[in-house]
Amino acid sequence: MQHIETEEVVIRPQGSLQILSYQEARQLCDVSERGLNDLLRQCTLAVLNTGANEDNGLDLLNKYARFEIKVNVKGRGVQVTIVNAPHHAFVDGELIVGLREHVFAVIRDLLYARNDVLHSGQFDVESSHGITNAIFHIARNAQLMIPNTIPDIVVCWGGHSIPNEEYKYSKQIGYELGLRDLNICTGCGPGVMKGPMKGAVLAQGKQRNHSGRFIGLSEPGIIAAEAPNAFVTELCIMPDIEKRLEAFVRLGHGIVIFPGGPGTMEELLYLLSILLHPNNKDVALPLILTGNHNSQAYFDQIIHFIELTLGEDATQLLEVIIDHPRLVAQKMHTAMSEVRRDRRDSSDAYYFNWRLHIELDLQKPFVPTHDNMAKLNLYKNQPAHELASQLRKAFSGIVAGNVKADGIRQINAKGPFELHGDPAIMRAMDDLLQTFVDQKRMKLDASTYNPCYKINCGDH
Amino acid sequence: MQHIETEEVVIRPQGSLQILSYQEARQLCDVSERGLNDLLRQCTLAVLNTGANEDNGLDLLNKYARFEIKVNVKGRGVQVTIVNAPHHAFVDGELIVGLREHVFAVIRDLLYARNDVLHSGQFDVESSHGITNAIFHIARNAQLMIPNTIPDIVVCWGGHSIPNEEYKYSKQIGYELGLRDLNICTGCGPGVMKGPMKGAVLAQGKQRNHSGRFIGLSEPGIIAAEAPNAFVTELCIMPDIEKRLEAFVRLGHGIVIFPGGPGTMEELLYLLSILLHPNNKDVALPLILTGNHNSQAYFDQIIHFIELTLGEDATQLLEVIIDHPRLVAQKMHTAMSEVRRDRRDSSDAYYFNWRLHIELDLQKPFVPTHDNMAKLNLYKNQPAHELASQLRKAFSGIVAGNVKADGIRQINAKGPFELHGDPAIMRAMDDLLQTFVDQKRMKLDASTYNPCYKINCGDH
Amino acid sequence: MQHIETEEVVIRPQGSLQILSYQEARQLCDVSERGLNDLLRQCTLAVLNTGANEDNGLDLLNKYARFEIKVNVKGRGVQVTIVNAPHHAFVDGELIVGLREHVFAVIRDLLYARNDVLHSGQFDVESSHGITNAIFHIARNAQLMIPNTIPDIVVCWGGHSIPNEEYKYSKQIGYELGLRDLNICTGCGPGVMKGPMKGAVLAQGKQRNHSGRFIGLSEPGIIAAEAPNAFVTELCIMPDIEKRLEAFVRLGHGIVIFPGGPGTMEELLYLLSILLHPNNKDVALPLILTGNHNSQAYFDQIIHFIELTLGEDATQLLEVIIDHPRLVAQKMHTAMSEVRRDRRDSSDAYYFNWRLHIELDLQKPFVPTHDNMAKLNLYKNQPAHELASQLRKAFSGIVAGNVKADGIRQINAKGPFELHGDPAIMRAMDDLLQTFVDQKRMKLDASTYNPCYKINCGDH
Amino acid sequence: MQHIETEEVVIRPQGSLQILSYQEARQLCDVSERGLNDLLRQCTLAVLNTGANEDNGLDLLNKYARFEIKVNVKGRGVQVTIVNAPHHAFVDGELIVGLREHVFAVIRDLLYARNDVLHSGQFDVESSHGITNAIFHIARNAQLMIPNTIPDIVVCWGGHSIPNEEYKYSKQIGYELGLRDLNICTGCGPGVMKGPMKGAVLAQGKQRNHSGRFIGLSEPGIIAAEAPNAFVTELCIMPDIEKRLEAFVRLGHGIVIFPGGPGTMEELLYLLSILLHPNNKDVALPLILTGNHNSQAYFDQIIHFIELTLGEDATQLLEVIIDHPRLVAQKMHTAMSEVRRDRRDSSDAYYFNWRLHIELDLQKPFVPTHDNMAKLNLYKNQPAHELASQLRKAFSGIVAGNVKADGIRQINAKGPFELHGDPAIMRAMDDLLQTFVDQKRMKLDASTYNPCYKINCGDH
Repeated sequence: MQHIETEEVVIRPQGSLQILSYQEARQLCDVSERGLNDLLRQCTLAVLNTGANEDNGLDLLNKYARFEIKVNVKGRGVQVTIVNAPHHAFVDGELIVGLREHVFAVIRDLLYARNDVLHSGQFDVESSHGITNAIFHIARNAQLMIPNTIPDIVVCWGGHSIPNEEYKYSKQIGYELGLRDLNICTGCGPGVMKGPMKGAVLAQGKQRNHSGRFIGLSEPGIIAAEAPNAFVTELCIMPDIEKRLEAFVRLGHGIVIFPGGPGTMEELLYLLSILLHPNNKDVALPLILTGNHNSQAYFDQIIHFIELTLGEDATQLLEVIIDHPRLVAQKMHTAMSEVRRDRRDSSDAYYFNWRLHIELDLQKPFVPTHDNMAKLNLYKNQPAHELASQLRKAFSGIVAGNVKADGIRQINAKGPFELHGDPAIMRAMDDLLQTFVDQKRMKLDASTYNPCYKINCGDH
Repeated sequence: MQHIETEEVVIRPQGSLQILSYQEARQLCDVSERGLNDLLRQCTLAVLNTGANEDNGLDLLNKYARFEIKVNVKGRGVQVTIVNAPHHAFVDGELIVGLREHVFAVIRDLLYARNDVLHSGQFDVESSHGITNAIFHIARNAQLMIPNTIPDIVVCWGGHSIPNEEYKYSKQIGYELGLRDLNICTGCGPGVMKGPMKGAVLAQGKQRNHSGRFIGLSEPGIIAAEAPNAFVTELCIMPDIEKRLEAFVRLGHGIVIFPGGPGTMEELLYLLSILLHPNNKDVALPLILTGNHNSQAYFDQIIHFIELTLGEDATQLLEVIIDHPRLVAQKMHTAMSEVRRDRRDSSDAYYFNWRLHIELDLQKPFVPTHDNMAKLNLYKNQPAHELASQLRKAFSGIVAGNVKADGIRQINAKGPFELHGDPAIMRAMDDLLQTFVDQKRMKLDASTYNPCYKINCGDH
Repeated sequence: MQHIETEEVVIRPQGSLQILSYQEARQLCDVSERGLNDLLRQCTLAVLNTGANEDNGLDLLNKYARFEIKVNVKGRGVQVTIVNAPHHAFVDGELIVGLREHVFAVIRDLLYARNDVLHSGQFDVESSHGITNAIFHIARNAQLMIPNTIPDIVVCWGGHSIPNEEYKYSKQIGYELGLRDLNICTGCGPGVMKGPMKGAVLAQGKQRNHSGRFIGLSEPGIIAAEAPNAFVTELCIMPDIEKRLEAFVRLGHGIVIFPGGPGTMEELLYLLSILLHPNNKDVALPLILTGNHNSQAYFDQIIHFIELTLGEDATQLLEVIIDHPRLVAQKMHTAMSEVRRDRRDSSDAYYFNWRLHIELDLQKPFVPTHDNMAKLNLYKNQPAHELASQLRKAFSGIVAGNVKADGIRQINAKGPFELHGDPAIMRAMDDLLQTFVDQKRMKLDASTYNPCYKINCGDH
Repeated sequence: MQHIETEEVVIRPQGSLQILSYQEARQLCDVSERGLNDLLRQCTLAVLNTGANEDNGLDLLNKYARFEIKVNVKGRGVQVTIVNAPHHAFVDGELIVGLREHVFAVIRDLLYARNDVLHSGQFDVESSHGITNAIFHIARNAQLMIPNTIPDIVVCWGGHSIPNEEYKYSKQIGYELGLRDLNICTGCGPGVMKGPMKGAVLAQGKQRNHSGRFIGLSEPGIIAAEAPNAFVTELCIMPDIEKRLEAFVRLGHGIVIFPGGPGTMEELLYLLSILLHPNNKDVALPLILTGNHNSQAYFDQIIHFIELTLGEDATQLLEVIIDHPRLVAQKMHTAMSEVRRDRRDSSDAYYFNWRLHIELDLQKPFVPTHDNMAKLNLYKNQPAHELASQLRKAFSGIVAGNVKADGIRQINAKGPFELHGDPAIMRAMDDLLQTFVDQKRMKLDASTYNPCYKINCGDH
């Protein structure tokens, strides 16, 4: 894609209810540490860069160094001025409407997270319940929870860097889900985060479903690498990766996992850490792993890794369906009724899975420094759900080292992360990661992947 | 109206976006000092008592002593259980939909004011700007501000206790405003707070206007005396009378004042205190006083009182139109274009009058104790806008002594408030209040009015 | 009301789907016998004269002799030019939206009745089934039938010239019906045709019911005397009085009759002629007669007249409820479920009462010439349902002589109609009509009523 | 695609306004010559067979010989019972909503065309103006004309049997048109009739355009071969191919032609016959021919054929754009403003091109018998627009012989059609058709194409 910038554009939130106070507008323009302009600029640039084949957050900021965004309040409402934005976000000089909505979603979420959640003292963000409540409030403010509807949100996880055949398969899954009026929630970037949405858009067109939902959950660290695609109709920026993961499992009613790289492993391990917790034995949260006819070997390896590290209790939770989109959709559709019954029987809300028990260890932001990565406990001397949590952090760190601006800076400065643990686990992990490298699942620009990690199998 | 109670009803917010967390539901059920149940109970009871001919907040609570309200979160959303509610809020056992919406508006506003405004530390409620910001946020949370619309909100002030002829006249005004697609905002009780809405509903029916707005602004202290009528489609409970008054002048685009009692005087003096402030010389805020063919004498006396106390600068602001609804509506309609031009020229928002300067003295809650009332400075040795502010407080105290639960309790305990001031002012005030008594504008139950005030004309 | 004319206005059908061909536009402008301009002019003038206190169709045409209407097709759609229209149809120069809709409803119905029904050869308008089919098609074209809804249309019949107290009572009935989400269908003029609609508009406002229906059925002959009030949201002009009456009973699900004059008697007798027919014994069509506390004597006389002429079988069909709006509404509400069950059990449509048997004699247009009136068979030697049909025609003729342009012309030329029949019937009829005269139920301008009929009681 | 039939399904027109009389229901079930069941059965089967890779109308009827359709009227509305329908029209036993809408569109159009157009005597279908009026009425009844909108309908013509690359290119064109909020109108089958719609659905999703229009025009003869794809939101069945062609050029505001076979040639020649007519010199009707990078040779040959037969006046009307979707869309977008200006300047309607002159010869149904084909005048001794009309008929006949049930039956019985004409023209035609055969543009099942025509180049 050519690098062209669009000089200056003024946009307004059409048809939205967005209204800002002067104070909020000032905060958004404030370039100091206390202000939000820096964060706003990063996230908006990511939003406007959608469709570009890039997943390096640092590169993006450098490339559009002259990009600026300003916010004003006047007359009929809010005015946002954008300078030197990526040209491909526009059609004949007009910003694509879906992207305009994303810009205002970013503004809404950054302000709310800062003023009403993190700085308001309303929530004890050091306690498990406080964090869950904060997520609930951010989601509510983003209008992600719709009362008087039945469970119908399918979370799709999987790689952002995938071969075309897998992308097509994910579209077919989305198509079959959409034919059954199920809604899609993803991490909102390219690849598997886009395919199911595209498929569902087409299916909903045929079903004349105009209220289909395409929910994208992101966070400031990852958004540059996984720019929300324009199909996303409900974008929400959570404050960090842990809150984003929790939002997925509390808002979603079922989960489909496609082949992916370390990010997908992070998601799978996060989920297993929850599902393996004794408190969650009875909570209905349907899960299907699926891929096209070529993905059998991939899933065999995943299952093998899970069995080796977390044991059979874990693999029993994993249903794999190969190359059968209709069956996946039918199973999900049926499972929705079970989720509904489960929520009703336990008097829980349909739109937020309050009952799911999540340990504070999974909720507190894990900062992937070299030190923190080295200190991870990747040994078997712990309950499966705790080991899953430690492994989740390891993969989280690798994602950061691969694509997040902060992570890349650290790797550039100090070399690869070092990981320590049980030799068997370490070896399996090494094998798995090597497969990801071989299959080009690490990054979009797969020409020369330099690992951001070093695995000490303990046996040297 | 007969006193019948409806045993137990469960309601849900249909078609609304209301979603509560467990924590919020608990707060609403908490009957301790820290909880909100007491406030919720009072406000909800007032809402459900609409249409009854009562304006004594204390009586109401005693009458429905067995009334209870509980809030739950489950399944498709929020459930509110109401026990022993006034029977006349229901049609064949079903709560009238408009009142159901009011119940959920009360819940929304009480939670937001408590958690996000008063207890959040986000707003400096000791500063003028902080208070204005808090009002902006409460109004925004109640979705009172609609972007992409032009100025069209006419605030109607006047008595809640008025003769039938005046009520009919207020309906005609509403009808003519409604024919011109203007929207109505009132204090949302009976009398003049209801008439214009009823008239506008009929006119909008003829104009096929389905997006007409009927905004009602109340506060916990007055709501029992001025129960929102069911025409109100957008109810908002401000935390106190001062924030309610500020909301009127910042959200409204024009103001019509009908004959009324001390509450109307409070409103008029509040407005004059603002309009007389030098900083507001250039702000467009159209104002018309109007009444039927019998109201000439009434308005003459008001003008006389204002001239005597605040001088000709004040009376020049007052345009009086007698018995000509169409002319009032046409003038307001024309004035809306001027407001729009004024806002555009000053780059101000259409939906919130940020530019209007309001002194902190008008914003800080005035608690009408015997002590505070006695200390009011009702002398001429001060700028007109400051005297207006002091007079406003005097009338505010009289309203409280007449109809608010707290005020009535104090009067019952310690006898009438005493007021001190310039003899001429005191005498004019005494005359004015006596007229209100004679014209039965003090209270709905006008049989035997016992003044809650004692005016020291200073000549003893 | 002052006579002022508005010079020239161009209107367009906003938000409607109305599209005309050039040929249709030409037809509407054609002032020759073959064209529709004359009929269009009469009906539109009546529509625009709404709210005026007149019921003399001939006077109206003379008064606005300079009124003109032209129809064009261009650009975005249809343009209608109106010249010298009654001033009171406008607000500050803009035609009231509800009346604009009525103008386009008139255009729609005149074209359809002429081109697709009367001149198309599609329907055998000499057969009972053909006439019913024609009515079905006109109603369908006017979108009066809404699939996927349950029975909820209450037809309100009664006087257009009534005392204020009766008007108020009809508003209360409408209010109670509206609170229960029932819809109103009337002959769409003033008096009882307007009151229930006004009441229901207010109730629906409180119930937040935005899909309330206000159906007005008229016909070219009567529309000038009973101009549709602006609350009517669905206006339909049937080709003649007989088709209008049939439309009432096939589209409505229940009927409420208020006190009225000869027009109301015509409606009641039409209905009895149907309900007394043996074929209709099992068809559910609930009927209530109601009025305020003063109406007992009125209804006693009606019942007496019915008993004397049609016997007890007829009076058993008449339930009278005095001064109890809530009870009337509750009974109608309950009866709707019975109608629904009845239609379901007989596999009939909810939106059109196909099963109701109506004799051709009731369907064929009765032209009230002096000759036809004199020939009516008002003797007892026939089944009750046939006598009811004859009596219906007699009252129909009296209505024409009172308020319809054609009828008035005839009376002016040849003196009063003469009626012949059974002495007892004739005397009862004479008494009844005299009561109507005394109670000023004949015409709006009640100063000096000159009877348009002469009753030969046979005993002279 | 597997042949599976779905036993019996009952469907209702959800959200539609469709209401039938008993008489109409009976007509639809009537299997006699006078009834509509046969036609209904054919068209509905075609609709339900969408997505299948077939274009042989006769085969389809044989394949689903047990397919039945019945129509009933009861309760809340119309009920349609479908027996032994193609399985792939259903999702888990539920008919796809878009297809359900198509079934009811078929019912609507068949009834209207029969009762209100062909058999009503309202239209003189032997006169040019009468035919145009009939088309206007059918389109209006199908609600294809929307007032108060500006010109935005782009007609896309091209092959139903095309290589995957051309299909992709047509999707890109649709995507770029959709990004600019232009609407798509096609013949509503597969191939180029589907691609632009699919692309536009995706673009409109990104632009949050929920009012996008996907108009499909068909006719009973072709629908089996070109089953409407489910993206079509507005399906209309014209009575015959000539009325369908006229509907395209009167409803559309611009035309894009993709590569195709004889059907596309028919469309192009029809259009040229109109545009070359002297009366149409000043009518704005933008036209672009476009294809992917491989299509240059194809268009060269088309241009060559047109030049040779109709001369340079004709080729000057043809703008060819190769492999540049954005440019095509931008040009169409700009041209829409010109169309708008043209209509405004000539006081013509935006939604129907009344001004376009179409000769009766182009409007009267051409029945492609062996006799009629042989009699075509394919010589140069006539004005270009007349020769274009004759050539149009020749290609029309070839389409019929290829894919229409009637045509196939005739060819099976009597062998190929014979065509006579100017040797140069005949040879060019032969070459062109041979290219279509070579490029597999004749039929979907391209294995062994047996020409349905024999061209006499005159030189034997």
